[in-house]
Amino acid sequence: MSTTPVIARTLADPDTPFAAVDVHRMLRNIERLAARADRLGVMLRPHVKTAKSLDVAALLHTGTPCPVTVSTLAEAEAFADGGYTDITYAVGVDPHKLPRVTALLRRGVTLRILLDSTEQATAVAEAARRAGVGIPTQIEIDCDGHRGGLRTDAPALTRIGRILHDAGCLDGVLTHAGESYFAYSAQEQRQAAKNERDAAVAAAERLRAAGLPVHTVSVGSTPTAHAAEDLTGVTELRAGNYVFFDLVMAGLGVCRIDDLALCVVVTVIGHRPEYGWIVTDGGWMAMSRDRGTSAQPQDQGYGLVADLDGTLIPGLVMSAASQEHGTLTARDGAVLPDLPVGTRLRILPNHACATAAQHHGYHVIDSSRPITTAPVVQAAWSRVSGW
Amino acid sequence: MSTTPVIARTLADPDTPFAAVDVHRMLRNIERLAARADRLGVMLRPHVKTAKSLDVAALLHTGTPCPVTVSTLAEAEAFADGGYTDITYAVGVDPHKLPRVTALLRRGVTLRILLDSTEQATAVAEAARRAGVGIPTQIEIDCDGHRGGLRTDAPALTRIGRILHDAGCLDGVLTHAGESYFAYSAQEQRQAAKNERDAAVAAAERLRAAGLPVHTVSVGSTPTAHAAEDLTGVTELRAGNYVFFDLVMAGLGVCRIDDLALCVVVTVIGHRPEYGWIVTDGGWMAMSRDRGTSAQPQDQGYGLVADLDGTLIPGLVMSAASQEHGTLTARDGAVLPDLPVGTRLRILPNHACATAAQHHGYHVIDSSRPITTAPVVQAAWSRVSGW
Repeated sequence: MSTTPVIARTLADPDTPFAAVDVHRMLRNIERLAARADRLGVMLRPHVKTAKSLDVAALLHTGTPCPVTVSTLAEAEAFADGGYTDITYAVGVDPHKLPRVTALLRRGVTLRILLDSTEQATAVAEAARRAGVGIPTQIEIDCDGHRGGLRTDAPALTRIGRILHDAGCLDGVLTHAGESYFAYSAQEQRQAAKNERDAAVAAAERLRAAGLPVHTVSVGSTPTAHAAEDLTGVTELRAGNYVFFDLVMAGLGVCRIDDLALCVVVTVIGHRPEYGWIVTDGGWMAMSRDRGTSAQPQDQGYGLVADLDGTLIPGLVMSAASQEHGTLTARDGAVLPDLPVGTRLRILPNHACATAAQHHGYHVIDSSRPITTAPVVQAAWSRVSGW
Repeated sequence: MSTTPVIARTLADPDTPFAAVDVHRMLRNIERLAARADRLGVMLRPHVKTAKSLDVAALLHTGTPCPVTVSTLAEAEAFADGGYTDITYAVGVDPHKLPRVTALLRRGVTLRILLDSTEQATAVAEAARRAGVGIPTQIEIDCDGHRGGLRTDAPALTRIGRILHDAGCLDGVLTHAGESYFAYSAQEQRQAAKNERDAAVAAAERLRAAGLPVHTVSVGSTPTAHAAEDLTGVTELRAGNYVFFDLVMAGLGVCRIDDLALCVVVTVIGHRPEYGWIVTDGGWMAMSRDRGTSAQPQDQGYGLVADLDGTLIPGLVMSAASQEHGTLTARDGAVLPDLPVGTRLRILPNHACATAAQHHGYHVIDSSRPITTAPVVQAAWSRVSGW
């Protein structure tokens, strides 16, 4: 199975379902956050876990590869192969994986890792001594009770810092405001960004007060990166979803629907007028089972529906999915449109990270170019997968 | 990216997360349904959409490849390459895909396709005439309002039958009792199986009464295949999920928890005692976002948890997931077990089809062999993916 799709002529050509990316929208999203980071005076370290694509990452910088964040060592290895030399692996490290970490460091890649326990710190210190390399390590800080990390006042913080420092492995602190995905107003998002910054800076100050040098103070999530007003004391900002955005981010007001750069192209394969259904060949295998908007004020089902040119069809929603079938229905009193068998549609996903992961790659179009028949495919980009 | 995992020595060796299959349980599941089909006097046509693996399929038969059902043309092509010559593609056909259908037929593969509209039937008839081959086609029948298909009394049924017959393309009828996934008692499942059989046979009889020969009368779903008591008039039975089973099927009583042949092996990477959480490196990327049991009387979260040898840990459930993090919590008053960083666990999934799709392949173990250190890996099996 090739991981790279063959380049098609237009979106009407490849067999459906397939993932498509609008490079015009994506570049707009990339430029928007890059400008914000500049204004805030912090380095941007994009998280490549959403697109998982060297082709997408190439548009994040000009010339020299930029610093990136990854969610798996498979991504780290693929990006190292692609010339990226400053990589943060932002999932608490399993000590079993340390040989792959030291192998990347020996190749000259500055691979920064993350942890939040003395057990992990001890394992990292031992691995660093055994390998004869420093392993730049960040201590995960919990700023909102979302997932992993230590609270800024946790007694273990300085203990872990000391273990790492003594082994030449202390790089800094990292936090992620995961709860900002449930912050529905601009004010709440600004507050989440402030809490995220405050927690990271407070943790760094505690370590410094204990005589432990802190280099990196890393914060970020797509909502807080777009809401932060002051990042004094922070050295870098992370965000990943923003390159594509999705309905969850639109529901939070972080982007508009027409910023969504990723869609899945599907074909109508049937009708059940007695139930008010249009049936497509794009089911959960193509969209993922992610229903992130089900927790939002406006549930968007498995996705909103646009025509092949990208124009939203009002009131039409993908309301159900089986493995290879999608069901479209009209809502809010909308009339079910007449879409014959063979009609191609775009489905805008709930969660770009999850939907993209169902595909080997992307067909790339550019919505800034005039559409004549169907959007012209500019390129085929592949994805990294696995662990 | 290789699609075939390297063979590891034991389940303690590969980096986590990864999918593992217990071949002993799988063979027991395969034999159970094969014996049922024998007793019912119907041919079994397993659906390979769950495992999507030629290695798994090789255990469905001895010697000659058996008839199979597929959910994508990519599966059809991979199975044709693997020597399978009797394949049903059980998703309503998009006319755009007919060139790939006729290409397989020209290779000597009996690829049966499915449809439920005169538009599709006309396209199939034209494609068959153009290609100079008969395209064996089944008419999809709706037995329970689940998805696609025609009701048995739909006027279009005989019209479609006539179009197909005139083009030498009428093979038969096919139905799928998808609503049986919500049938919680043995009695309801038997009733769903009876409805499924009755609908398929009634549709076949209507076509025959109109002078249209019906060869195949195909029914099936995992719950109804295990509940059917009489399949008179049916020629073949389809089921797919049963090779692995999962928590949804266990919740329906179709299997026991210890029939589940697929799991995901994860590692503990942290603890949040203040919240009662154990954090692992297996998130939704490894498990999928499928929460099928959320609609069942007993919600199993993202999965039940067993130790590396396969023994369930009472009261422990994977209750939350982010992309590369899983959160385990105790329920029903259970005490959170002491599982240090580095501990490996098995997570039993909600929905095997969705979880398996997150992985390139399977590490294969055999629970009938005595366990000394960690279960020994017998083989590495790859999966087909894409469309």
